[in-house]
Order: sequence, then structure tokens, then C-alpha cells
Amino acid sequence: MSDGLPEQVKVVEVGPRDGLQNEITTIPTKIKIKFIDLLSACGFQSIEATSFVSPQWVPQMADHSNVLENITRFPTTRYPVLVPNEKGFHAAVAAGADEIAVFTTASNQFAIKNTNCTAEESLQRCQHLIELANQRNIPVRAYISCAVACPFEGPSNPMVITDLAKQLLAMNCYEVSLGDTIGVATPLQIKRLLSCCLEQVDASKLAIHCHDTFGQAIANIYAALEMGISTIDSAAAGLGGCPYAPGASGNVATEDVIYLLNGLGIKTGIDLTKLLEASAVILKHLKRDSLSKAARALQSKTNKP
Amino acid sequence: MSDGLPEQVKVVEVGPRDGLQNEITTIPTKIKIKFIDLLSACGFQSIEATSFVSPQWVPQMADHSNVLENITRFPTTRYPVLVPNEKGFHAAVAAGADEIAVFTTASNQFAIKNTNCTAEESLQRCQHLIELANQRNIPVRAYISCAVACPFEGPSNPMVITDLAKQLLAMNCYEVSLGDTIGVATPLQIKRLLSCCLEQVDASKLAIHCHDTFGQAIANIYAALEMGISTIDSAAAGLGGCPYAPGASGNVATEDVIYLLNGLGIKTGIDLTKLLEASAVILKHLKRDSLSKAARALQSKTNKP
Repeated sequence: MSDGLPEQVKVVEVGPRDGLQNEITTIPTKIKIKFIDLLSACGFQSIEATSFVSPQWVPQMADHSNVLENITRFPTTRYPVLVPNEKGFHAAVAAGADEIAVFTTASNQFAIKNTNCTAEESLQRCQHLIELANQRNIPVRAYISCAVACPFEGPSNPMVITDLAKQLLAMNCYEVSLGDTIGVATPLQIKRLLSCCLEQVDASKLAIHCHDTFGQAIANIYAALEMGISTIDSAAAGLGGCPYAPGASGNVATEDVIYLLNGLGIKTGIDLTKLLEASAVILKHLKRDSLSKAARALQSKTNKP
Repeated sequence: MSDGLPEQVKVVEVGPRDGLQNEITTIPTKIKIKFIDLLSACGFQSIEATSFVSPQWVPQMADHSNVLENITRFPTTRYPVLVPNEKGFHAAVAAGADEIAVFTTASNQFAIKNTNCTAEESLQRCQHLIELANQRNIPVRAYISCAVACPFEGPSNPMVITDLAKQLLAMNCYEVSLGDTIGVATPLQIKRLLSCCLEQVDASKLAIHCHDTFGQAIANIYAALEMGISTIDSAAAGLGGCPYAPGASGNVATEDVIYLLNGLGIKTGIDLTKLLEASAVILKHLKRDSLSKAARALQSKTNKP
């Protein structure tokens, strides 16, 4: 019984960026570099390393160039960095970015609060950044925030999200990641969204980016896998959250996702034991336990005779 | 898109028993009674109220008779109590039990560690208790512990679990609850187990009882719903755990389950806001936050302007 699940999945580790940018504690640069290097050793194909956003807005990412320049790049891993504008783009390129990630949303209210521009202007910014990247043959990944619901405008329209995904792909992003930014979705909402998108976009072009605010992320990811989605964003130890979205808690924990995928017999190429070691480095500095239940259970087993 | 999901689901609230028996802090009797009364007001059809096990083994449940005699019984709610042996059965009947729950397992090692008898002897005990209950027209619910895997013997055989469920139903239990006691399952294991059971047992006779040790419980419940299961066990605030199973964490939180079911458009008759109030009474005495992410997110919303 495979239920049409994909045979293998690419897990995009977003802990160093989406995770750490939303933690109150700022992590020393050398610890970030160690964290990313340990993540590379786990076997991830993609690790979102940092964000070239203004330090005024996100002080946790002020060391972006230093981080990107000093990580050890594994030949089988790509290191996308989030880029909000042209200044960030040029800084990212100068620091040797091999991939960039851009972000937009269908929700005006969210765009205004998050990026101080309308949704339409946000898409235009993306288009400009994608053009700049295309000129340099730098691959681009795009995020659609609030793809399921917006904290200010309520449920999103799957048709609108589909149209936005199509536009981003037409601009020459290689992948669009659909974000349940405030973690409110349940599996049928994910299926309805994907069902709509998949009428016009190939599953290989879509990723799912779930937050676990209401404890539904693993079920939502399972639902997405049932729909044929084979790229999943997650953050080691469930790091982070979204400061612009009321009530948002952290990203779904990568350890819980890997436990799910292993249990489903889906290949990821990721070493869960090494991942626990990578997360431990950050958790020590955050002075707290992992938000991953699988991590806590595995560690409790390891600690027992 | 309904994916063959049931239109309505019975949620069996096991917090007062499976939850509280595994908390280190013993709750005062009057608080337990208040908790159960508040749960009744939420609209549950079934609340497992206590366990008539020896206080020597489970001191948290020493006040079982006092609890069962003093709760306010709602006409639309049943209050099963766990009964391990004949002594417990008679004490439960004397306290006015309107339903009993018995438990067994297919795993010898688990039976020996948990109940000091073999799996076969454990089933014989169940048979005797079911006969006693049948003589008094008291309905009986049966649990199969370690229905997915045993912490000592590894993965369970779905054929063996199916056979055990059939035997229990033939003894005249009205329902068999399949327990992922150590919370290790992922959705395909649940589907494989249920697929095997459903060849010989009607879905209306089966319940699923998930622990959230590895963060997979909501996904597993969603998978069970996809298989047509319409009875779900859970514990308010994710109370409890299993002291006999290394690494086990609490039951899946009822609030997360209700959030899932509401999102799927499945009727439960349960008032989630009232449930938060019921859980708050116990959490205050446990001096800790809810283990339910949905509860925490909803409360964080309520606390904001």
C-alpha cells in the first residue's frame, strides 16, 4: 500500500534562516556556521543558510555575508539565501550565493505589514529579483506566504494562490513553496489547495512549508505527500516562528518530518542521528529543549541504559 | 473532496484516567470531579473517568470510587472505568459504573511487565471480566495495547492484532480500541493495521488510541479517518503517558484532535472553548502548560487584544 506517495522527497532545511531569524536569542556567527556545516553532513540537498534582509529589520541575520562566506559547501548541497530587495541581492551575490529565495503573498494586509508594500508590488519586486538572478544563472526559489490563510484577511483562495504560483514559475523560478505561515491548515485544506494548483502546475515544481502552530503540520505534510508533493520545508528542532503573524509558532521540526518519511519508506538521504547532533549545537545556545517530539523521544532512548 | 472521511466521530476522552494515572502529580479528588464535570459539559459521549486498579500499583487512581460516585452524570455521556481484575470489577460496580474497559495485548513481554501475566492469561482475565459485565448488562470496551509495536518485542503483526480484536468482540465487547501505546507509528503502519482488521471487523467496532511520542499522532488519526474509523481516543491537554513503556510521552491532545476534526468538517458535538476551560483546571494543579499546540495557539489568540 503506497497510496501514491512519492518514492523520495527533498527536505529543504530552513532552520538557519526561517528558524533562527525568529528566535529571540541571537546566535554567534561561528555557531551558525558550525550548525550549517553539521546540517550539510546530514545529507540535505538544500539548506537555507541566511537572509540578506536589513539588519534594522532582522538583527538576527546581520551576519549574513559572514555566514555565507564561511560555511563549508558540500558539492551535493545548495545553500539558498532569502533576498528581499536589490540591495540584498547584490550583497548575496557578493558573498557567493549559489541560489536565492524570494517571497511574496496574495494577501495585501500581510504584504503591507511584512514588507511595507502591496501584494502586487511585492510580486513586482520578485520579478525584478528573478530577472537579476536569471542574468547570472542563479537559480531562484519563491515562497508564497499565507497560501492557506492570512492572519489579517482570513482564508486564501486556492485559485488566487494557483495563479500566483503560475506567475512566479513563468518568471523562471524553479520551485514555488506554498507556506501555511500561521500554521492553521488541516489536511483537507492542504488537499484543496494542492488539488487546485496541480491542475495547472506540475507537482515537481511545488513545495510545502508548514508551521506547526495548531499541531497539524505532520498531518498536513502527509496529506501533501498523498497529493504527490515531494519537496518539504522544515526547520531542525522546530526552530523559529513568524514575528509578523499573531499566534504563529515555529516551523515543523525536521526531525519529526524525517521520522514520518522514514516510517513511510520514503527516501530522503538524511541521517537522523547526525541531525540530532546538529540541532543540539543550536539548542545549547538557545538554552532550551528541541520542539521536535521525535528528537526528544530518540534522545530519551539514547540516554537510557 | 471528502476522501471517504466519516461524517461524525465519537471522541473518547481518556484524560481523567489514561492521562492522570501517568502524571507524577496526584490531583485532589474534588479537582478530578470538577474536571470530569467540565468535560461532560463539553459534549463528550464518553469520558473514561478512573481506573479500579490497586492503589499499590497506581496511587493516582486510589480515589476511584469517590470520583465515580460524585461526578455529575450527563444523560448523553457514558463514564467507562478501567478494570484490571475481578476485585476491581466489583468495586467499579459498587461505585455505579455504567461501562467498563478491559485491556490486553498480543505482546507477552508487555503483558508480563504491565500486568504480571502472559498475553494469553491477560486475554483470559478479559474474558472473565467481560462475562461478569455481560451478566449485569454493563457494556464493555476493550483496549489492545501495543497494537502497532511493543517496546520490548518490536513491531506487532497486524494479523495477530486482528485475531485478538475478533476474539474480544466475540466475547461481547462493543468496541475494541487499538493502542499505539508507545507512539511510534506512522500513517502507513496505521493503514496497514486497519486494512488487515477491516477485512474481518466492521469499522464501527474499532477505535484508535494514539500517543504522540514521535509527533505523529494527528497524522495517524487522519490516516485512520481515511480508513473509515470514527472513534478516536484522546486526552485533554495531552495529559499522561505510559510508565511501563520506555520513552512514551502523553496521549494525543484532545484539543488538537478536535481542531483537526473541525477543520475536516467532521461533527463531534464537542465545544472546544469549554474544553480549554476544563483542561485549565487540571493544568493549574499540574503547574504546567498544555501539551496541546492548538490549545496554546487558541489561548495566545484569546490573550491578545
